[in-house]
Amino acid sequence: MIFSAQIKVMPLKDLLDPQGKAVLGGLHNLGLSSAIDVRVGKHIELQIEATSKEEALQIASEASQKLLANQVMEFFEISIV
Amino acid sequence: MIFSAQIKVMPLKDLLDPQGKAVLGGLHNLGLSSAIDVRVGKHIELQIEATSKEEALQIASEASQKLLANQVMEFFEISIV
Repeated sequence: MIFSAQIKVMPLKDLLDPQGKAVLGGLHNLGLSSAIDVRVGKHIELQIEATSKEEALQIASEASQKLLANQVMEFFEISIV
Repeated sequence: MIFSAQIKVMPLKDLLDPQGKAVLGGLHNLGLSSAIDVRVGKHIELQIEATSKEEALQIASEASQKLLANQVMEFFEISIV
């Protein structure tokens, strides 16, 4: 059975996010001054062949820890659809 | 009132995603052969000062169309928390 894992990888809250700051500046330049903070991360859609939702979650978690997220600077959240 | 908009920007389904293909190769090299497809996009968290959820959604939509997503190659989905 094929499961779709949606993985969100974002910079840790305590770290500066220069890409987000640049986007915020860009939004203000476009006149969107009601934007007050931006953080930019990655969204990864992973199709996984697994026998159960639990197995798919375990594989997605292993993939995130080993490759997708750098846990020194980023955290990740997984949801299986 | 401050709303948090979660914006997902992904490459269009019909387009090749070379970054996703590279990640898929990396996962297979790590022994995670049950991963069968990967697509990589952006996740943007936008804090918006607005009077209603509808106004926040409208601002997030404008930001996505004008700056965050390149609609020739990408689509976006917004959820307001």
